[in-house]
Amino acid sequence: MSLQLTILGCHSATPRVNAYPTSQYLEINNRHFLIDCGEGTQRQMRKYKVGFSKIDHIFISHLHGDHFFGLIGLISTYGILNREKDLHIYGPEGIKELTLIQLKLTKSYTKYNLVFHELTSKESELIFEDDKVTVHTIPLDHRIYTNGFLFAEKPKPRNLHIDNIKQYSEIETCDYHNIKAGKDFVLSTGEIVPNSELTIDPPKTKSFAFCSDTLFKPDIVPIIKNVTVLYHEATFLKDREDLCERTKHATAEQAAIIARDANVEKLIIGHYSSRYPDLSAFKKEAETVFENVELAEAGQTYDASLTLESTY
Amino acid sequence: MSLQLTILGCHSATPRVNAYPTSQYLEINNRHFLIDCGEGTQRQMRKYKVGFSKIDHIFISHLHGDHFFGLIGLISTYGILNREKDLHIYGPEGIKELTLIQLKLTKSYTKYNLVFHELTSKESELIFEDDKVTVHTIPLDHRIYTNGFLFAEKPKPRNLHIDNIKQYSEIETCDYHNIKAGKDFVLSTGEIVPNSELTIDPPKTKSFAFCSDTLFKPDIVPIIKNVTVLYHEATFLKDREDLCERTKHATAEQAAIIARDANVEKLIIGHYSSRYPDLSAFKKEAETVFENVELAEAGQTYDASLTLESTY
Repeated sequence: MSLQLTILGCHSATPRVNAYPTSQYLEINNRHFLIDCGEGTQRQMRKYKVGFSKIDHIFISHLHGDHFFGLIGLISTYGILNREKDLHIYGPEGIKELTLIQLKLTKSYTKYNLVFHELTSKESELIFEDDKVTVHTIPLDHRIYTNGFLFAEKPKPRNLHIDNIKQYSEIETCDYHNIKAGKDFVLSTGEIVPNSELTIDPPKTKSFAFCSDTLFKPDIVPIIKNVTVLYHEATFLKDREDLCERTKHATAEQAAIIARDANVEKLIIGHYSSRYPDLSAFKKEAETVFENVELAEAGQTYDASLTLESTY
Repeated sequence: MSLQLTILGCHSATPRVNAYPTSQYLEINNRHFLIDCGEGTQRQMRKYKVGFSKIDHIFISHLHGDHFFGLIGLISTYGILNREKDLHIYGPEGIKELTLIQLKLTKSYTKYNLVFHELTSKESELIFEDDKVTVHTIPLDHRIYTNGFLFAEKPKPRNLHIDNIKQYSEIETCDYHNIKAGKDFVLSTGEIVPNSELTIDPPKTKSFAFCSDTLFKPDIVPIIKNVTVLYHEATFLKDREDLCERTKHATAEQAAIIARDANVEKLIIGHYSSRYPDLSAFKKEAETVFENVELAEAGQTYDASLTLESTY
């Protein structure tokens, strides 16, 4: 299972009993990330059994309360839980000052290291990389400096086509490394065996793009081209598209246009305005443009592997 | 109904699904106060139908997260709800700086006035007074500067004993004001009719003392003497009294000793440590010292009027 997304909250700021603000938990290629952290996120993590200790990297899209007012509580809880590992926090400039002053005034400095990665660029940039995964920012257009995040598996090595390889007695086990890396094999006769004959394609890499909150912004399409799953906010329906410019939000139709143009496999929408009691209209509106749409719902887990199994 | 307390949260900091941190909503003599504001308080207010617009005064005991991390979310929500009235916040020094920097960095200054009343005194002081109610601080002993709060109805005028008054034809309606204020009446003969003959006692004033978090502190007893309802923290049972000194918390038995010595009518305990799965032991331990004990529970409302009705 290489990509699994759990929605912890998916509503906008107005407080309601069963409408938690934005937070998502992403497992991709055995890496575990928390994306945004609205008030009550730690309670939702407990409810949906997200292991606190698995998370070492938290990504905050922007400094509006419904996306990060739960962060200080979570940081404090890690202190209570005697965390020792570093905790990395990626977010807009100011997030470090804001966090440290709260820890100072509450006299609750953490025993573990908080490592802040403050973001200021208006261009997409690589902000995390290890041997399994990369994370790039997706510059968005909101009332305040805001980034989405693109999480992508690194390409896997090609798989050996053992039956074909066995046709060539000259190929030995020690050659496999080069073949998996995509190289052709040169026989002692000088004949070249093309790599395509010796290998089969590895599983397609999975990727997830998180885009909330933003005005309709078609110039993100090249950044998120062909992602497996796109989460895109859909605060309004197109009947209230007039509210988008002032509040810098998008409609369900606009989210679907981005999904279609970026050729994504699945679109998940959320961040619904509290003015809409019936959310099914969001799905309906998006489906007029793009077929594979899901409504985000707290506690729901989207498993890209399973989805692909049922699709192929 | 002159005193009604609703528990919004009553647990200590460790996050759990159904264990919200401290917050209480108090109605006393038609005044409405919020006391402490742990993470998730605004969600609990929605759940238990506490009217957001009724609250003009919020009292924060101390700057530990489980008592105020929900404040910034509530302040922001009042902005979304287009609040226009002033909001008064009473709490330790630093609460203003902390709040304002969050509003600045989130670019969400409120349109209504935030009026901060920062507390620094180590003696009990009057911090709120109008024609109906007074609020005094109760200095507590915790790891950080902490106050409890004593909310008290102002004494009501005496009630007229109409049957007795009618015995004296000289007493006219215009004299009632003085008689209700407690004055004797002088007849034209010079004879004095004592006020006690002309009036009956008004209903006893109600009061509520909120004491969380604190080490066992018997010197608060004179401040809270004879209150109607005392909320006192009971983080531990006496089997772990050894933890009290380091963490500056109290046991159920100690809370009950305070209640007994202060001669309160009812004791409510809460702020239970997450180490105790069965809370009934808290009630049992407190009852060995003081009879009228209730366990705080989110959503529960304690009505002092009803309690007294059944007692008398």
